[in-house]
Order: sequence, then C-alpha cells, then structure tokens
Amino acid sequence: MMEERKELKVNAIENGTVIDHIPTNSVFQVIHMLGLNKYENQILFGTNLESKKYGKKGIIKVNNRFFEPADVNKIALIAPTATLIEIKNFKVVEKKDLDIPDTVSKFVKCVNPNCITNHENVVTRFTVVDKKDVKLQCQYCEKTTAQDNFTFN
Amino acid sequence: MMEERKELKVNAIENGTVIDHIPTNSVFQVIHMLGLNKYENQILFGTNLESKKYGKKGIIKVNNRFFEPADVNKIALIAPTATLIEIKNFKVVEKKDLDIPDTVSKFVKCVNPNCITNHENVVTRFTVVDKKDVKLQCQYCEKTTAQDNFTFN
Repeated sequence: MMEERKELKVNAIENGTVIDHIPTNSVFQVIHMLGLNKYENQILFGTNLESKKYGKKGIIKVNNRFFEPADVNKIALIAPTATLIEIKNFKVVEKKDLDIPDTVSKFVKCVNPNCITNHENVVTRFTVVDKKDVKLQCQYCEKTTAQDNFTFN
Repeated sequence: MMEERKELKVNAIENGTVIDHIPTNSVFQVIHMLGLNKYENQILFGTNLESKKYGKKGIIKVNNRFFEPADVNKIALIAPTATLIEIKNFKVVEKKDLDIPDTVSKFVKCVNPNCITNHENVVTRFTVVDKKDVKLQCQYCEKTTAQDNFTFN
C-alpha cells in the first residue's frame, strides 16, 4: 500500500490545465496533437475512467501550461465533449466547455491526396459541416475529412 | 478544488500492474509497445514526475493486466530502470526489477534495410551487446540497432 499512497500527492496540480471528459478513444490523439509526448513538465493522464456523464472518459492534467485559443480549437475538434479547467495555486480559476469552430484552417490536412493543399504551399481551409461527428469540408476541393482521418500539420 | 479531490480515488488500482521508474522519454514508447493506447481498461500514467532515485521518471498503472515474461522483456529493453509492481486487492503482491535478457528475438526489427530479416520471412535474433545503453547486434547481418531506433513487430 505504501507505493500506492505515495503517488496520491502528485495527482493535484498547482498550476496548469486539466482537460476533462475526453472521449476515451481520443486521449492519445489529444496528447500527440498538443505535443505532450515531448513536453518536459509534469503530466498526468488517465483513460477509461468512469464518468457519470459519458460512461467512460479520459483526463489529462498538464502542469504549468495554459492553452492558447488555437490549441483550444484543436482540442474541440477531436474531443468535443471535453471541459478545460485552469488551475492556479491549486484552485480552479476557470472552467470552460469547448465550442467547435465554424471554420478550421491550417492545422488539419485534407484527406484528398489530389487536393491543391497537399501539393502546393497553400494553407488548408475547411468549413465544419457536422459539429456532432466533426466533419470538415475542404474549401478548395470540397472533399470531406472526418475526425478519424485527421492528421495534423 | 472539488474537481481535483474527486480524481484522487482513481489513483490507486485494485488489481493490475504498476510500471514505476520509467525513464521519462520512454513512457510513450512503453505505452505503444504494450498496445496500451488501445487497451479498454483503466490506465493511469504520469510523466516527468519527481524521483529521488533518477531525478525524473514516468509511471504507468494498468488495471486488470499482469504482464507475461515476453512483455516484461520488452519493457526491460526500453525502460531498463523500471520496476514492476503487481497489485491484487489494492495490495502489492510482487515487486520486481527488470533484467535485460542476453538475447532478443522476434519483436524488434533490424535497423539494416538490407538485412535478410527485412526481406524474407525470418524471425529477428539479436545478441544484447550493451546492457546499459541497450544495443542489439543482429545475429544475421551483425549490424547494431540502438534503443532510439527500436521499431516493434
């Protein structure tokens, strides 16, 4: 039991962001998209945790990091049910649900291999055509990229 | 503070394995190698946690899973400092340091693109020539594969 108890104190973060209510199958996608696999500060995560709201959920706690709106939009796209909780001095200072934006540019790649954005130096631009399952329609080639196919620039 | 306190109870696992003292830069390699990114039971992990022994460490707690010797050998190769702690009914039933094996077969790919193991249906076989930095010498082509280059079959 010693070992288990010892870890408890690391669970609360002093300053940083908790990303809660992440769909379980998106936890590693969120981690990689935010580059947390290379982050040098303390991070705690859990997946397949019980959630009253969603059955199962994932959670990520990142020490000493507060996310910019661009990152928050990325999180919304792959984990639309997530809640962002900002913590300062061990206290919750802000709690926000995520809104999926109407348009997305730059960071998602178009699924169409023939799309101009995959061949020339053109920044991707999508219209969000489905906010529930998160589907993005390319403003250049009109092909739809679904969440499962998101790869990030 | 509510939010933070609520999570504490999930930190102790009832039955399963804790992989402690993982080098911080190997945490995600261990997760992917063991297929934990697709595991459907509860998992908790932390990285860049403080460690008296090693400065910084990672930890992975996997519910309802006990690793077979083959998996334990894989863990030893990419996280030689790790300790495996088996938990039943919230109690530590076994605690073991990992030993790097003298030979490795099957699961690591040879770094040499011309090696026969990359072209024909031949199982890889390596001699562990350095146990500190973990280097594997191929028994077919004699090229050395270092830990940074491990890709798994």
